[in-house]
Amino acid sequence: MIIIGEKINATRKQVAQAIKLQDAQAIAELARMQAEAGANYVDVNGGDPEHEVENMVWLIDVVQGAVQLPLSLDSVNPQAIMAGLKRVKHKPIINSITLEKKRMEQTLSIVRDYPCSVVALLMNDNGVPSGVDDRLRMAEELVGRLIDAGKSEDEIFVDPCFLTVYTEPNAGLDLLESIRRIRKRWPNIHISGGVSNASHGLPERKWINQAYLLLAMGAGLDAAIIDPCTEGTMPLVMAARVILNKDEMAMNYIAATRVDK
Amino acid sequence: MIIIGEKINATRKQVAQAIKLQDAQAIAELARMQAEAGANYVDVNGGDPEHEVENMVWLIDVVQGAVQLPLSLDSVNPQAIMAGLKRVKHKPIINSITLEKKRMEQTLSIVRDYPCSVVALLMNDNGVPSGVDDRLRMAEELVGRLIDAGKSEDEIFVDPCFLTVYTEPNAGLDLLESIRRIRKRWPNIHISGGVSNASHGLPERKWINQAYLLLAMGAGLDAAIIDPCTEGTMPLVMAARVILNKDEMAMNYIAATRVDK
Repeated sequence: MIIIGEKINATRKQVAQAIKLQDAQAIAELARMQAEAGANYVDVNGGDPEHEVENMVWLIDVVQGAVQLPLSLDSVNPQAIMAGLKRVKHKPIINSITLEKKRMEQTLSIVRDYPCSVVALLMNDNGVPSGVDDRLRMAEELVGRLIDAGKSEDEIFVDPCFLTVYTEPNAGLDLLESIRRIRKRWPNIHISGGVSNASHGLPERKWINQAYLLLAMGAGLDAAIIDPCTEGTMPLVMAARVILNKDEMAMNYIAATRVDK
Repeated sequence: MIIIGEKINATRKQVAQAIKLQDAQAIAELARMQAEAGANYVDVNGGDPEHEVENMVWLIDVVQGAVQLPLSLDSVNPQAIMAGLKRVKHKPIINSITLEKKRMEQTLSIVRDYPCSVVALLMNDNGVPSGVDDRLRMAEELVGRLIDAGKSEDEIFVDPCFLTVYTEPNAGLDLLESIRRIRKRWPNIHISGGVSNASHGLPERKWINQAYLLLAMGAGLDAAIIDPCTEGTMPLVMAARVILNKDEMAMNYIAATRVDK
C-alpha cells in the first residue's frame, strides 16, 4: 500500500497561511508528521494560480529539507509541474493527468521527458465519470496514452475518481466495481484515489474515509492520497494488508502497532 | 447489517465470574451496553458443559429482563438450545449448526419445530474448511439441509468460518472470496461470522477485527458476531453501509454519529 500524505495542500487554511508567511517550519512539521505516520510520498499543492509555480518550488525545497521521502506534485498547471520536476531530488508522482484535452497534451509532453510516475485521474472535458463502463473507457484511453508516452504500468496510478457518496447513492458501489475491473484489466498497475473527496457533506468524515479506504483496498486499490495522521487510519491500513496477504507473518503490522502504542 | 453482540460469553472471565456469583446486574449491564451501541441481537453463551443448560436459561432471563432485543443462543449442546428455545420471548438465532454429523442431526430436529433463525457454521467432522471450494461445498450441503428442515433463506446465517490470519497467509483472501461466492449463489441469505476469531495471536486485535469486518462487508457479509462496544467499530460499520448504498441519504449514519459525539 502506497500512502501519499495529503496534508500539504494550499486549499487548507493552515497551509495557505504558512505559504503566505513563508513559514517553512510549519510546512516542514507537516512533512515530518506524515513521514512518521507512514507516508511513502508527500503531496505538495501550491494553490493560488497566480503564484502556484513559485509556491510549488518553495514547498518542494522545504519538504525536501525536512524529510527523505519522494514528492507528489499536485497541480493542474503544466508549468508548476514542469518547475517541480526540475526541482525534485527523488522520482516523484505527478498528480495528476486527466483526459481533459488541452491539459492532457501539455502534461503528456512534460512527463514523457522526466523520470516520474503519474496519477491518471479519470475525468475528461465533460467532467467526472458516470458509472463503471465510463470509468473503464476512460482508463483504457488514459492508460494507453501514458504507455505510449513511455510510462510503465508501475509508473501509472489510476485514480478512478472518488465522488461524494452522500448525494449519489450508487457512487460507492460503482467506484468499488470500477476498481475491481481496473485491477482485473491491469493486474500490475497502481490504483489510487483521493478518498476523502467522498465524505463531503457528512459529519465525522473520518469514519467514511477510513471505511471507504478499506473497502477500496478489498477491491484492489493499492495506493491512496490520504491523511496518514488521522487516528486509526494507518493501523487499519496495516491490518487490512495482513488480511489481504500483503504482509508476511504480519511483520509490518506488528512493528507499526508497536510504534503506535 | 445485523449486529450480534458477543460480550455475554462464559469463555470470558468476567462473564464466567458473573454467572458463578449469579450477578444478574453485571450481565444486564453487558446486555444494555451492547443494545445502546447498536446490537440487533444479544448472544448468550453459558459455557461450562456441566451447567450449561441452567446457565443458558438464567442468562436468557437476565438479558430479557434488561433489554428488548432478541437473543442468539450460542451453544454446541442441543439440550441447551432446546431449553433456550422454550424460554425466549422473541424469535432467536441458534448459534450454531455445523455439518458435524451427530450435532447436526440433533440440532436440525430441534430447529425445525421452533420459529428461529440458524447460524450455519461451515465445519464438519474433519474440522474447519480448507479453501474456497471446500466452503462452497459445505455451504451447499448445510443450507440444503436447513431449507429441507423448513428454514427460509432469510432465517439462515451462513458463517464461512473466520480463521486466524496470522498463521495462515491465505486465510483472509480465501474467506473473502468464499463470501463473494456464497453471496452470488444465494443473494438473499444472510452471511455472518465471528470476525474476532481471525485476530488471535496478533497485538492490538481491534484493528484486525475492524479491518476484516469492513473487508468482509465489501465482499457481501451482512451480519457479524462482534463486540459493538469497541471504540470505532459501529461508526465504521455505519460508514461502510453508506458507501455500500444500504443507508438512504446516510440517515442512520448521521443519527449514529450524532449519538456518538
